[in-house]
Amino acid sequence: MIRKLFLFGFLFFSVACFSQTKDEAFIRQIADEILLNGKTYDNLRTLTKTIGARLAGSPGMYKAEEWGYKMLQQSGSSNTFKQPVMVPHWVRGGKDEATANIAGKKKQLNVIALGNSIGTKGKGITAPIVIVNDFEELEAKKQQLRGKIVFYNYKFNPRYIRTFEAYGDAVKYRSQGPSLAAKYGAIGVIVRSMSHSTDNIPHTGMLAYDSMYAKIPAVAIGIKDADWLAEELKFNNNIRVELKTNGHFLPDVEGNNIIAELKGSENPDQYITIGGHLDSWDNCEGAHDDGAGITQTIEVLRALTALGYKPKHTIRFVLFANEENGARGGSKYAEVAQSKNEKHILAIESDAGGFTPRAFSFNCDDAQFEKLKTWLPLISPYGCNELMRGGGGTDIAPLKEKIGTPLCGFLPDSQRYFDLHHATNDVFEAVNKRELDLGAVNMAALVYLVDQYGL
Amino acid sequence: MIRKLFLFGFLFFSVACFSQTKDEAFIRQIADEILLNGKTYDNLRTLTKTIGARLAGSPGMYKAEEWGYKMLQQSGSSNTFKQPVMVPHWVRGGKDEATANIAGKKKQLNVIALGNSIGTKGKGITAPIVIVNDFEELEAKKQQLRGKIVFYNYKFNPRYIRTFEAYGDAVKYRSQGPSLAAKYGAIGVIVRSMSHSTDNIPHTGMLAYDSMYAKIPAVAIGIKDADWLAEELKFNNNIRVELKTNGHFLPDVEGNNIIAELKGSENPDQYITIGGHLDSWDNCEGAHDDGAGITQTIEVLRALTALGYKPKHTIRFVLFANEENGARGGSKYAEVAQSKNEKHILAIESDAGGFTPRAFSFNCDDAQFEKLKTWLPLISPYGCNELMRGGGGTDIAPLKEKIGTPLCGFLPDSQRYFDLHHATNDVFEAVNKRELDLGAVNMAALVYLVDQYGL
Repeated sequence: MIRKLFLFGFLFFSVACFSQTKDEAFIRQIADEILLNGKTYDNLRTLTKTIGARLAGSPGMYKAEEWGYKMLQQSGSSNTFKQPVMVPHWVRGGKDEATANIAGKKKQLNVIALGNSIGTKGKGITAPIVIVNDFEELEAKKQQLRGKIVFYNYKFNPRYIRTFEAYGDAVKYRSQGPSLAAKYGAIGVIVRSMSHSTDNIPHTGMLAYDSMYAKIPAVAIGIKDADWLAEELKFNNNIRVELKTNGHFLPDVEGNNIIAELKGSENPDQYITIGGHLDSWDNCEGAHDDGAGITQTIEVLRALTALGYKPKHTIRFVLFANEENGARGGSKYAEVAQSKNEKHILAIESDAGGFTPRAFSFNCDDAQFEKLKTWLPLISPYGCNELMRGGGGTDIAPLKEKIGTPLCGFLPDSQRYFDLHHATNDVFEAVNKRELDLGAVNMAALVYLVDQYGL
Repeated sequence: MIRKLFLFGFLFFSVACFSQTKDEAFIRQIADEILLNGKTYDNLRTLTKTIGARLAGSPGMYKAEEWGYKMLQQSGSSNTFKQPVMVPHWVRGGKDEATANIAGKKKQLNVIALGNSIGTKGKGITAPIVIVNDFEELEAKKQQLRGKIVFYNYKFNPRYIRTFEAYGDAVKYRSQGPSLAAKYGAIGVIVRSMSHSTDNIPHTGMLAYDSMYAKIPAVAIGIKDADWLAEELKFNNNIRVELKTNGHFLPDVEGNNIIAELKGSENPDQYITIGGHLDSWDNCEGAHDDGAGITQTIEVLRALTALGYKPKHTIRFVLFANEENGARGGSKYAEVAQSKNEKHILAIESDAGGFTPRAFSFNCDDAQFEKLKTWLPLISPYGCNELMRGGGGTDIAPLKEKIGTPLCGFLPDSQRYFDLHHATNDVFEAVNKRELDLGAVNMAALVYLVDQYGL
């Protein structure tokens, strides 16, 4: 396209954005600071390319903590500190492998062991495979599962417009599927990746073993291989798969939530928390999950400081430890807040990717939600043109549970997220600079408004 | 992130989307048809990977026309036809080259000749370079430009939230810059690419020579090389650049708008037009510009047909010829509509990329806009949650000029568009399947509503 298509739109926008009420003007300043001088993208490059994967307990975790501490210090906080928390230390332990054997013909399958899963103890396991499309089918076939490998082929439902709904619908096969298969004597599980991607990259993520049943090895399989396997199983119910994985737990280690504060001038003992999680899965750079949330959190601090903003309430910038396979960082943060009897006004989390901003979701009471909605015209020019009811995020959820803090989740566009979630292609190159920056703009605007007017 | 964050959101969504008013239900059917059985992505793969570049007059143009005709036929139209139109035939003619010479040290610059520009006649031109940041500076330096190459270094302004505004602001340096430099005796132009990308790929696009002045060669330069050149020019005002380009026009050739109709049952002589443009620049696959609009247009036809929809008005699906360097396709279409005294209710164009849907912009009267706004709750669950005043698109603009047709532009998210617009990286791989599909869903929903209720 070649022309200035949207002239009327331009004019409307200009008038809307450059008028000079105090809040409009300050939010415009925030946007200019981030869009013109922002460090979000450069910081993300460092986190992903210099540090890289940073699962709890891994060498990357320690590097990420040091880096995060330094970045928060440099970005304007006079009070940066570490909050120790014991975190799990799961290691993959080697290459994950699966080979299908159909009447002597072998095919390598593209798999990755699920996080927190046990390995096959070196020698691997080989067994016939039984496909089930859902838990109902698992029940129907329960007599056939002893000694078998169960293949959960439940598909990500494309009918959901917001892809997190498809994830919410499908993820139980990854988290609970292994133990439910073990309940009927299965010795291994292959689960279709939680994705509607058009490639064959497998997506890991945490399983949760039920202590009632045997712990069995479990892997996720790429979509194309899942489709291939399902097709083959239509014609041959005697396909054997050899599975080799090496996952195991080492003793818990001490990690840290990395926290910076901008002290409140009027209500220093009332807190607004904004954060993301510093850990990532071990198989990727964790650029969207959750390098985006981390660098946006740091950027909000940097921009507010650069603008000389003196908050009324104390703003806490939190890089949470260990979300992916234990959620210990968020638990510790809430535990400490409760023990100190802290008053938290709102907690905001960015953990849904670094894509173009679309919405904020709130878990709060009706009066608070009504108040929040009055701010929509101030925020929507920057992308978040929807305020909805919903959750906040794994790291901040314990604040609600323990001390009743209202929660807010930043929701960028979700269409591309599950193409790369927990997969090797969650890399820096998949992040767009402006989309990442605009996320920080929207979050900073909300922090500013909550600080100015409370909830 | 690991959890079902948005449970409240899910429930709200489910209730909103599956309730059974007639229009909600039919739009849900459209979405299901496209998201479950859609051909948009596969068709885009064929258009970009099998046919590829398809500038007016090129071999790709003829192949694209044949393919488009066949696809419209296969997608359910009983009346598919070609509308001949003479189109320009500009060819690049060879490799575009620019070499900077600083005191004997040479550096290749990443450039691409502007569309419709003349070449340097084989031997190239070499001249000192003069940097200007805008037209004001051009005027100030007008005495120094004779025999020089002017380097327009006007930057894409990151402060605009919608990137089309930055484009509208900057594009005059590409379109008018060459002739304004020629006016003062310059013999060549280098223009900073119309992009805020983080790479160094140059972006072509049309210039418009002013017949008052000499036609001089003109290229766009990649952002990193533009920054490098600007930096060097701070310390050395005697940098010479050698420019070699080979662009020239061949005689106009006959191309075609490719048109399919679904005949109206109640008002067959009243038309709703939906379309995109079939041509692309010669340096890319034209996946977003405008393979997306083409495959979405075909998909709307396919989906409505698959659902057995019998429109009240006649719906025209138009693959416009030659938007990029002449806009002849849209002119011809409007000219024929005027000559036949056709009544057009609305024309919709998708020519802003295949990204996630955000808005529709309308150029219509107040009463029409008020009516359109009442449909927002029906469309917004699928992504377009904003209806704004604005333009339609280059191909449909002549319908407004000639016969007063209200116009509508489909506006996907704009953040990534100018990273690849008119550049070699506008390829199939840069398109996300769901984002592309959802664009077709939103367009089909709007076509359905306009057909049902008129404007």
